[in-house]
Amino acid sequence: MGLFSFFGPKRKAPEQTLSEAIRNIFGYHPRNVSIYKLAFKHKSAAVTINNGFRHCNERLEYLGDAVLGSVVADFLFKKFPFKDEGFLTEMRSRIVSRSNLNMLSRKMGLDHLVEAGKDGNNAGSSIMGDAFEALIGAIYLDKGYAFTKNLIVRKIIQTHLDVDELMMRDINFKSKIIEWTQKEKKEVSFNLVDESENGKKGKLYTIELVVEDDVLGRAQDYSIKKAEQSASRQAWEHISQQEAGQ
Amino acid sequence: MGLFSFFGPKRKAPEQTLSEAIRNIFGYHPRNVSIYKLAFKHKSAAVTINNGFRHCNERLEYLGDAVLGSVVADFLFKKFPFKDEGFLTEMRSRIVSRSNLNMLSRKMGLDHLVEAGKDGNNAGSSIMGDAFEALIGAIYLDKGYAFTKNLIVRKIIQTHLDVDELMMRDINFKSKIIEWTQKEKKEVSFNLVDESENGKKGKLYTIELVVEDDVLGRAQDYSIKKAEQSASRQAWEHISQQEAGQ
Repeated sequence: MGLFSFFGPKRKAPEQTLSEAIRNIFGYHPRNVSIYKLAFKHKSAAVTINNGFRHCNERLEYLGDAVLGSVVADFLFKKFPFKDEGFLTEMRSRIVSRSNLNMLSRKMGLDHLVEAGKDGNNAGSSIMGDAFEALIGAIYLDKGYAFTKNLIVRKIIQTHLDVDELMMRDINFKSKIIEWTQKEKKEVSFNLVDESENGKKGKLYTIELVVEDDVLGRAQDYSIKKAEQSASRQAWEHISQQEAGQ
Repeated sequence: MGLFSFFGPKRKAPEQTLSEAIRNIFGYHPRNVSIYKLAFKHKSAAVTINNGFRHCNERLEYLGDAVLGSVVADFLFKKFPFKDEGFLTEMRSRIVSRSNLNMLSRKMGLDHLVEAGKDGNNAGSSIMGDAFEALIGAIYLDKGYAFTKNLIVRKIIQTHLDVDELMMRDINFKSKIIEWTQKEKKEVSFNLVDESENGKKGKLYTIELVVEDDVLGRAQDYSIKKAEQSASRQAWEHISQQEAGQ
């Protein structure tokens, strides 16, 4: 055993490393490191305790998803004072979409912190987005809503996202779906399954997007074109997750 | 003109009345009454301003829906420390369901405060639930998250809801749907449209509930029975709103 082993730097405890990682990413030291540790524990690495309860990040993900939804709703409400709720809802969907949360997770380097078991591969790309939401849940429990809101807006949205670009990005999901079904040699149809009168706004259309015999998207709008786009976006998210999981 | 007209009590301004109503319901005076006024303005009573923007409660409803979701998520997370995210999600759905929010609105007397135009009848029972959510949005903007959370938990959930009863209430939505379709002489089917392997948890089933040719519900679960129940609950909410709107 050499001299270095005695006098060299001690190996840090995992909690200390995690605490430093959080400080590097967000600039603060967590109070309760154990919640953050839990946030990075994917269900494939879950420890089942006495009563069958699985100790993993799923509960924190549920909480973080809700807190993130509220913070982003507030952010958009104030950023766009003259946009209607349809626009705000669409923008929020884009910001909190799995693909966007996965991208944010990678930018922040969360992939180095996630703890997943070998079954974790089945979950595909959703692991990163899930961990992102669970981390928001952990920050909320550790530091409260105001702190979390400030962090999401300044350290995540304003640092890593171009909201105006996201707004302008007019993704034609219907084209994407059609291209994909042609490539995969699958049948696709956009079915108008319901139309109902709704006062001044005119008819409310319900569109279902069917690939082979599966309904992969379903949306309502006062414009058929917009309903088709929303149904296509749903289907696209579904297909992307399936493909990532394979 | 009699003596009383001169010396009798002055008619109060609408803002003052609304401010007092809020104090009577929740025990505090609003700082910014105009946001609360907006919260009670249903879109059927909207005023369209210069650039086509409709001045009504839809934006506040969008915000309040998100804030309510976050507060209820937090409340349940802490109330049930050993329940999994499936249970928490289901309980939250029950608390924030349109039928429950409508019931809360009536209990709190919000129906006396809502301002709706004659087209408002088309919206059926959703007016009250929408106003409830918009009011949460107004309180959040006026007083912040911590105040709103405290108010929702103490003045609404703990005062007007029996959460344990809501938990025990095992509504059999599938039976409700079958009864309804028999009464209405409509065809109903529960179709297994997808099943996929998902590691340890087993197969993930996707069930679609089809009434005549319309998909009224779609849900995924590791149990077919549970997926059918969730799809039925969606369909039930849809049918209830349609019937209320007629």
